[in-house]
Amino acid sequence: MSLAITKVDYPVSQVRRYLEPGPVVLVSSKWNGKTNIMTLGWHTVLEFSPSLVGLMISGGNHSFEMIRHSRECVINVPLTDLAETVVRIGNTSGADIDKFAEFNLTAQEADEVDAPLIQQCYANFECCLYDDVLVERYNFFIFEVVKAHVATSPEHPETIHYTGKGEFMVSGKTMNLSALFRPEMLI
Amino acid sequence: MSLAITKVDYPVSQVRRYLEPGPVVLVSSKWNGKTNIMTLGWHTVLEFSPSLVGLMISGGNHSFEMIRHSRECVINVPLTDLAETVVRIGNTSGADIDKFAEFNLTAQEADEVDAPLIQQCYANFECCLYDDVLVERYNFFIFEVVKAHVATSPEHPETIHYTGKGEFMVSGKTMNLSALFRPEMLI
Repeated sequence: MSLAITKVDYPVSQVRRYLEPGPVVLVSSKWNGKTNIMTLGWHTVLEFSPSLVGLMISGGNHSFEMIRHSRECVINVPLTDLAETVVRIGNTSGADIDKFAEFNLTAQEADEVDAPLIQQCYANFECCLYDDVLVERYNFFIFEVVKAHVATSPEHPETIHYTGKGEFMVSGKTMNLSALFRPEMLI
Repeated sequence: MSLAITKVDYPVSQVRRYLEPGPVVLVSSKWNGKTNIMTLGWHTVLEFSPSLVGLMISGGNHSFEMIRHSRECVINVPLTDLAETVVRIGNTSGADIDKFAEFNLTAQEADEVDAPLIQQCYANFECCLYDDVLVERYNFFIFEVVKAHVATSPEHPETIHYTGKGEFMVSGKTMNLSALFRPEMLI
């Protein structure tokens, strides 16, 4: 059982800090009184302000229709302590089980959306659907992050990055090359 | 000066192996007889087959118009040995300099597109524009990877992942959780 994680509000224009490196995320949703969670690795930052993120949510997922109808979700960033849970969530369907109950995860009330935060994750980004123009053709949802919560520690979290075939890469050391940047590039 | 890297053809449906973990990439292009390179961190896999990848190419980049007109590019995956070069490429404009010459990079002929491969990168994915429906609104290009070249070693390359403010995360250890997957999920 994970301990409660202390989080603070985080500027939505800066969520790239946690999404651009490409971690696997857990996407939580709520529709018709039921919640669900899916594992997702295909996402990209699209804009700083408004804070836009694109998610490819495959149509075969139970979450797809829930998110399409509710037009919102929460992007949760799990760390290595949740790696096995991330796989088990991806292995099961919300059509069959209540994933919060099954995997001992805590659904925490969000501020701006009905979808729940996953308390045990390092960061939680509350999202509203911004543009569904590519949903029909590519299952690609463009969301605006409207509220962000990030844990106060550690400074460099151990995120997990999927490489296919059941293997993950874990985030390693950090490199600071800010001295090489033109000042206006340091956003 | 980097040594020549031995590469083999790689299945285009499997390029997620190198893109899904979220590395910074170098995007090379060619238009009107000139080549260029840009640094890019906002990308996502969109489909296995056809092998689709989405790239957010900001309109302020010299590469934007070159790629929009030529309708192709190469996505190159650099490793840590090129980290400083990656920053310097992002700091400069192809309107002012020839980036291959300036940064001692070797432009290698591609098989399927006119844009050059960057020989010193670990992997090179030749891309043709597949859908430009989101270019006007979000600078978001959907490309099909039509040919892939990947180095024969190392098996677990040290990729670099941008977190903003001049800091990078370097790929760390690997975790194999394939025993937890349903067999049909192991793609």
